[in-house]
Amino acid sequence: MFIVEGTKMLDELLTSGFKLYAVYALETYLPFLQISAKLPVNIKIAAVTEAELGKMSALHTPNKVLAVAYMPQDDVLLSLSGDYFRQNMLLALDEVRDPGNMGTIIRIADWFGIRAVLASENSVEFYNPKVAQASMGSLFRVKLQRLSLPGLLKSLHVPVYGALLEGRNIYEEDFTEKGILLLGNESKGISPELKACITHPVTIPRFGAAESLNVATAAAVICSEIRRKI
Amino acid sequence: MFIVEGTKMLDELLTSGFKLYAVYALETYLPFLQISAKLPVNIKIAAVTEAELGKMSALHTPNKVLAVAYMPQDDVLLSLSGDYFRQNMLLALDEVRDPGNMGTIIRIADWFGIRAVLASENSVEFYNPKVAQASMGSLFRVKLQRLSLPGLLKSLHVPVYGALLEGRNIYEEDFTEKGILLLGNESKGISPELKACITHPVTIPRFGAAESLNVATAAAVICSEIRRKI
Repeated sequence: MFIVEGTKMLDELLTSGFKLYAVYALETYLPFLQISAKLPVNIKIAAVTEAELGKMSALHTPNKVLAVAYMPQDDVLLSLSGDYFRQNMLLALDEVRDPGNMGTIIRIADWFGIRAVLASENSVEFYNPKVAQASMGSLFRVKLQRLSLPGLLKSLHVPVYGALLEGRNIYEEDFTEKGILLLGNESKGISPELKACITHPVTIPRFGAAESLNVATAAAVICSEIRRKI
Repeated sequence: MFIVEGTKMLDELLTSGFKLYAVYALETYLPFLQISAKLPVNIKIAAVTEAELGKMSALHTPNKVLAVAYMPQDDVLLSLSGDYFRQNMLLALDEVRDPGNMGTIIRIADWFGIRAVLASENSVEFYNPKVAQASMGSLFRVKLQRLSLPGLLKSLHVPVYGALLEGRNIYEEDFTEKGILLLGNESKGISPELKACITHPVTIPRFGAAESLNVATAAAVICSEIRRKI
């Protein structure tokens, strides 16, 4: 299970297909909760004090309400239709460790209509409270799965676009064949084992002097470039 | 003055034109500092304990060294040559409050060769330690200035591209005429007063369901789109 904080995120949770376990709210907020038509019947609702909410919360400034929900267990790849890759890409993340980056990438995927984000098992957990917060509710819409990436990339038989510093200029790459867009760790980039799986190395051209771009920034620029060419 | 933390950031500081005030280092790191050819003579260098460094530092895990440097005082707009806008854009930020976003935007500007980032006076300070950290050294290369944006935008007589949810598709906008790219606050967007200064409202097309993009993400996507068309 994982925690979901704040009225806006709870609202997104309630309109998603996620299964709710319990809701903890400040006394003053309980009446608003109880009149919500979206709240399933027979859900555990408990009043908590501000001090209690502060202990449960992962936020600096806890909101009025905190929910506990079940993580989805479905197999993302099985849930995609057979011709998914004819029109769509997936994101695959190799050891993305920063929860803010992970949440931002999920939000980017949601904006650009990318249905799933896969991540290596040494990446930060998708249902970490900071990831949930940074995703701004996109966590409930994008399918997420942690798995062993080398096995996946070798078995899928689709192009693997890898974000590297020495690949093909993304403005010249046509991205006609859909597949996986692979992004790497914040400081180490893509691991050697996964680098060997890349069929299309791609690079965001640099016009100034920064050494690199943040991984979420790179994801956004490349997703936009893919979408503008569809 | 402002603080700069860590060996990598100190290195970037020493190769920049920034004026240094003092360097505080752990005893064990002092010998490495003293043999650095880049360190100006007559700079105050002091040994500190780990506990002292912890108190001075803004980081969760303080690095071996912390420097204090002077903020540059030059007028950014005066420092640009008269025909700057024939080939270049500037970024202008309206009330960007999150230091991580601010630092990431400075890094993006540096990558895409945008020479200056301007920000409204109610934006987070450029020389906030978290901004410096997120900029990964780009803080030393991109010119930065906080000023009153409405006055500036009205007096400059260049196009103002404003990132809105209801503007022209960025993929169709040609960005031929250079000017200012204006981005707004994390939750409120661009203020009504500044909205009135926008000559070219632009929008990143949405293909999925996320309500919005993070301001640094939007900056990256639009800067990339501008650069690919030059």
